[in-house]
Amino acid sequence: MNSLRSGVIKSNRIVFPDGIKAGYLLVQGGKISGFHTHCSAGYIDYSEQIIMPGFVDIHVHGWGRGSFAYKGNNASLKWMSHDLVKAGVTAYLPTSGTMPNAFLEASLAAAAGYIAAATPADGAEAIGIHMEGPYISEKHLGMQRADCLQWPSVEGFEHFNRLAGQNIRLMTLAPELEGALELIRHLRAQGITASAGHTDATFAEISAAIEAGLSHFTHAYSGMRGFHHRELGVVGALMYYQDTYAEVAKQSGITIKPEAFDLLYRLKRDRRLVLMSDCMGYVDFPEGYEFYHYLRKETFRIKQGQLEIATDGGDTRQVCPCDYEAVQQLEMNFLDSVKNIVDRLEHGLVSVARIACENPAFLAGAQDRKGSLLAGKDADILVLDNDLNLLDVYCRGVRQAQIATV
Amino acid sequence: MNSLRSGVIKSNRIVFPDGIKAGYLLVQGGKISGFHTHCSAGYIDYSEQIIMPGFVDIHVHGWGRGSFAYKGNNASLKWMSHDLVKAGVTAYLPTSGTMPNAFLEASLAAAAGYIAAATPADGAEAIGIHMEGPYISEKHLGMQRADCLQWPSVEGFEHFNRLAGQNIRLMTLAPELEGALELIRHLRAQGITASAGHTDATFAEISAAIEAGLSHFTHAYSGMRGFHHRELGVVGALMYYQDTYAEVAKQSGITIKPEAFDLLYRLKRDRRLVLMSDCMGYVDFPEGYEFYHYLRKETFRIKQGQLEIATDGGDTRQVCPCDYEAVQQLEMNFLDSVKNIVDRLEHGLVSVARIACENPAFLAGAQDRKGSLLAGKDADILVLDNDLNLLDVYCRGVRQAQIATV
Repeated sequence: MNSLRSGVIKSNRIVFPDGIKAGYLLVQGGKISGFHTHCSAGYIDYSEQIIMPGFVDIHVHGWGRGSFAYKGNNASLKWMSHDLVKAGVTAYLPTSGTMPNAFLEASLAAAAGYIAAATPADGAEAIGIHMEGPYISEKHLGMQRADCLQWPSVEGFEHFNRLAGQNIRLMTLAPELEGALELIRHLRAQGITASAGHTDATFAEISAAIEAGLSHFTHAYSGMRGFHHRELGVVGALMYYQDTYAEVAKQSGITIKPEAFDLLYRLKRDRRLVLMSDCMGYVDFPEGYEFYHYLRKETFRIKQGQLEIATDGGDTRQVCPCDYEAVQQLEMNFLDSVKNIVDRLEHGLVSVARIACENPAFLAGAQDRKGSLLAGKDADILVLDNDLNLLDVYCRGVRQAQIATV
Repeated sequence: MNSLRSGVIKSNRIVFPDGIKAGYLLVQGGKISGFHTHCSAGYIDYSEQIIMPGFVDIHVHGWGRGSFAYKGNNASLKWMSHDLVKAGVTAYLPTSGTMPNAFLEASLAAAAGYIAAATPADGAEAIGIHMEGPYISEKHLGMQRADCLQWPSVEGFEHFNRLAGQNIRLMTLAPELEGALELIRHLRAQGITASAGHTDATFAEISAAIEAGLSHFTHAYSGMRGFHHRELGVVGALMYYQDTYAEVAKQSGITIKPEAFDLLYRLKRDRRLVLMSDCMGYVDFPEGYEFYHYLRKETFRIKQGQLEIATDGGDTRQVCPCDYEAVQQLEMNFLDSVKNIVDRLEHGLVSVARIACENPAFLAGAQDRKGSLLAGKDADILVLDNDLNLLDVYCRGVRQAQIATV
């Protein structure tokens, strides 16, 4: 059975937005067509497994053997789509970085081409593009490039979006930059999510941006002006404005402490928090590329097609792109991140389905097709065991063969 | 009518912990003896006024014409008790600062004497002492003196508490200092509140202190290690640990932004937030004393018995201790602070009764006598008009004559 383009799944635990139910999930033409508590047709029996919607990763530069942000070509997206399903991700926004303009332009064009041609058999669906920069602040660069910053402009964005085949769904920008408010208003008018990230904005500047249409915060806490009680900054604003969304990266406990996650969750709850990966796909970085990972305190470089990692102490090791098991251990994957937080969420897997599926689908403008197992949505389905290990993945009804090998 | 030691108050709006009710409040021997919806006895008719419990200020160095922290004598406490009722405060913890040891010792002894002799006619009741320091961090001094720091010790505390006639109810300390955890355990065993303030503690150090018995945070946000998502610090800890109390000073919008207050309120709610004044009583500072107020950006000095205030630009003005109207404008009073926040609280005056009366009474160990208008509590009663202007104050049933003059 390699396809469920049309068919029935039976399970005692199907995760819906309003709870976990036992019954039969009907699929037709790669879409969920309904849910019934009784069914006379033949079905695939996942009675003892958990059925939930595939994760939607709206902030992912690369994963596994592909890095869109650093290679920006068709192959990088093919690898990402192929490998992301192994982490439970069935839809994503390939996320560009703040790179040289020509590279950005070529990347966006490559994404447009890939999106137009991809099929469910290719794996996770690229449902648009997230641009992280180049309209960001030099004061909070993180891993972004200072020499590639640009000033926000509607014209500049429109140029990018034409190259991208009108596929840009999310822009991370610094709202305090000249021209940003006009761009935010423009994005809102087009239904594209504007998100504050890599920003030194004051609380007042964020307030003005929200008024203009800003609705989201990119990697909450990181790359933004911190909290102070007399100038609440960006962190204070994302804590304060309850209706705004905020995303957090993979929950390894390294980037942000678990308690910082809990605090944000307490303020945002299921309806406004978003889980994403912010993964990079290190092995697909360009030949000769080298950088220092300031959180890991290791130097990464690509040498003769392999990734070499050097510790501060001088120890080095190589990772071959051909070795997926080694590659995927370089970064925490989406599913492992979910495993790390599910017990701290108010409604367990139902909360996961909101913060990892429904909310990001909304921000990507794909809520009509993605984010839940309600009738009418794409049949992007995860089959999990009790320990949340992935047994099967369906992308628009097509069973992904590579899962069985993980 | 100068006394309600025994009698009845009628009002259509009496603020109780569980809501605002119409009826008759009975007072006997200076204590609330009951609440009835009908009453045949004679009563004082406050039908159109609001009746609520007096405020309990657990962090007040001085107010009006008295400054306990800076004068540390009987007269300073007399003035504080006398003037605090004009701000709606009927019970308080005179709060010492981090001062020379001999001064501290004398202050504590003076407080012990004052507390033993004071009567309801003197005004607000000093229900114990709050010691702010000297066991605090040199890294977050605020207005405390670096040359007067001491290391925490059970012996040191016991010495202070003997001088204070066993009246210390609250200790603000830095939990990361050597000896602090042992002292916190000792305080817990005695039912004395340990509070983190003027502290550079890490999140882990606060966690250990909570384990030892720490239950409160002094002037939340100020004088403590700030929030960061990889080291949550003291601010992160007070946000994170839901069962801990946190106090905020008078809400003028200067010390902390209104949105920072709102955020803390959202995390603490009515049951864990505490309003206090942190007022100083500037006109009662010692002759010759001079300091720079870093928030106001003004220099305060006492010259020939008057307070001289000099702006950075060189303008000066004098305030005479005899002029209460001028004196009380130097600092926002407790009641004005309440007026500034009541509309932002979930349950209006009922919330006020919790954060300004019930919670601080608990932290001061006076929950058996103070903090609400339930039967058995002292008849510490405020009579307010619709705009929350103070019309009458009763301290343990004794009507305070000076209110009418305000």
